[in-house]
Amino acid sequence: MHYLGIDLGGTNIAAGILDENMKIIRKGSAPTGGDRHYSEIIRDMAQLSLKLLDEAGLTVKDIPYIGIGSPGTVDRENGILLYSNNIKFDCVPMREEMQKLIPLPVYLENDANCAALAEGLVGAARDVEDSITVTLGTGIGGGIILGSRIYAGFNGMAGEIGHTVIGMGGEKCTCGRDGCWEAYASATALIRQTRRAAMADPTSAIHRLVQGNLDNINAKTAFDAMRGGDPTGAKVVNQYIRYLAEGIANMINIFRPAKIVIGGGISKEGETLLQPLRELVRELTYFGGGDVQQTRIVCAQTGNDAGIIGAAILGVAPESVKNE
Amino acid sequence: MHYLGIDLGGTNIAAGILDENMKIIRKGSAPTGGDRHYSEIIRDMAQLSLKLLDEAGLTVKDIPYIGIGSPGTVDRENGILLYSNNIKFDCVPMREEMQKLIPLPVYLENDANCAALAEGLVGAARDVEDSITVTLGTGIGGGIILGSRIYAGFNGMAGEIGHTVIGMGGEKCTCGRDGCWEAYASATALIRQTRRAAMADPTSAIHRLVQGNLDNINAKTAFDAMRGGDPTGAKVVNQYIRYLAEGIANMINIFRPAKIVIGGGISKEGETLLQPLRELVRELTYFGGGDVQQTRIVCAQTGNDAGIIGAAILGVAPESVKNE
Repeated sequence: MHYLGIDLGGTNIAAGILDENMKIIRKGSAPTGGDRHYSEIIRDMAQLSLKLLDEAGLTVKDIPYIGIGSPGTVDRENGILLYSNNIKFDCVPMREEMQKLIPLPVYLENDANCAALAEGLVGAARDVEDSITVTLGTGIGGGIILGSRIYAGFNGMAGEIGHTVIGMGGEKCTCGRDGCWEAYASATALIRQTRRAAMADPTSAIHRLVQGNLDNINAKTAFDAMRGGDPTGAKVVNQYIRYLAEGIANMINIFRPAKIVIGGGISKEGETLLQPLRELVRELTYFGGGDVQQTRIVCAQTGNDAGIIGAAILGVAPESVKNE
Repeated sequence: MHYLGIDLGGTNIAAGILDENMKIIRKGSAPTGGDRHYSEIIRDMAQLSLKLLDEAGLTVKDIPYIGIGSPGTVDRENGILLYSNNIKFDCVPMREEMQKLIPLPVYLENDANCAALAEGLVGAARDVEDSITVTLGTGIGGGIILGSRIYAGFNGMAGEIGHTVIGMGGEKCTCGRDGCWEAYASATALIRQTRRAAMADPTSAIHRLVQGNLDNINAKTAFDAMRGGDPTGAKVVNQYIRYLAEGIANMINIFRPAKIVIGGGISKEGETLLQPLRELVRELTYFGGGDVQQTRIVCAQTGNDAGIIGAAILGVAPESVKNE
């Protein structure tokens, strides 16, 4: 048995075929072309899928279903993408359209939930039942896995952990609120913080790292400056990790998951990020006394493939994955 | 069949006997005397229980187990109260000690979780599976009911929703962090806010309501002043509801429970509190688009009996309660 997962993104459609060990044996991508009618985008998703199956020497008979991860709010039961701000989708009958092209069951899930499922079932949290995956990107993506299953809330919209206010009246957030965690601790926020710090310190090494053009700042710049001994870079990184820690401590006090999994490009900093983060979180977390086990904070393992893997395993019973 | 629940509090031990319809048929209380050795406190808990059974014309044979709710962190499996800051308890073998006096199974649970279970199974959220009960008191007590069961996290400590920072670097919290929701939206916080506002405005009606002694301010004072037309009272109430809304919007964005249940003395304000709260929360909640059902915010129904009821039903399968 093989599995097919499609990760519909704002820029690209990525798809992959997994073997029965949940390893990707084939993957590919195509531009989303998000300004087109949804039927064209879905047609490209189907064509990419069929092409990958063909390249892998498989047919649609070799896969039990198609899993799709998409940004936005989904109606799982009816396979409808209700709303996506990222791609301008509004009530798209994803399952119905896809089944016109490939007659298989279709699972539809929010992309952050797919990433969390990938980490929770085959990635860094595969050994525990309760985990939260925090993906640091344009925003903060959140996925909650409880009892080895996606927790989606009563209306399917749970897990918007980036849109929890940690600084009332503070940084403007794209969601309309002021002070959301995402406005302080996403990659976008780190880039903004790096730019502000560089503008305030003309002597900072940040200027050299971006060849004098602050538009070249990315989420790695402040870390690189810090590694080069730049005090302003170090200050930005320390403050950023503090912001990250405040939100993670909140999630731990609420959920006490066995693991918090940090994903997204920034997680490539590894222990440079995680070691100070763990120390701060320990200070900020409500103490339980005694020898109570504490939540572990770890890096994501499925990387850029999280969306594909999570989508591909949407229809797999958790037990069958965990018992491998 | 009848049920026995004990609500161990910092000041009083409250206990009650429930009939098979989960109605309290008998209840009573005794002083906790929290500075005594735990064995004396547990002896009083047992004596109160036996007295209530006797008064109800029952014996220990008529109840299947004893349910105990306690502040602090519990080890459910072993029936040990690991740590309580409220009563100075440290690794108290609650089940073992109680069974020396009454030979029945003993269930032990955190008191905020008991309150949430009471609301989730027999109170304001009995018609839904996922609810969060927010009890506004000395602190903010939180209990998370998912799938009609207490969600306690992997180490049993989940649900400390009061200790989530909404105002980084702001009000000092008893937990050691700065800016916890509890430091802004508990009854204690409202009293502090009312006192500060009264001190800043010598003409406020608050002074008259407390006979000139600001130590008489309680969580109702600002509401009373507002009802009497006092602008300072109204300002305090509006700001307080804003603080409450920020935290509740956070919980909704994370959990999307079917219901948020507001308990504690302040909830007696009813629609005076809930109507503006709902409006603010609607503004602050991440929008899902379309006709997605939204979380309802309601008042608790089990009142001061929440702890007793929640403890009493700890051993009851949710289905058997919900199907009545």
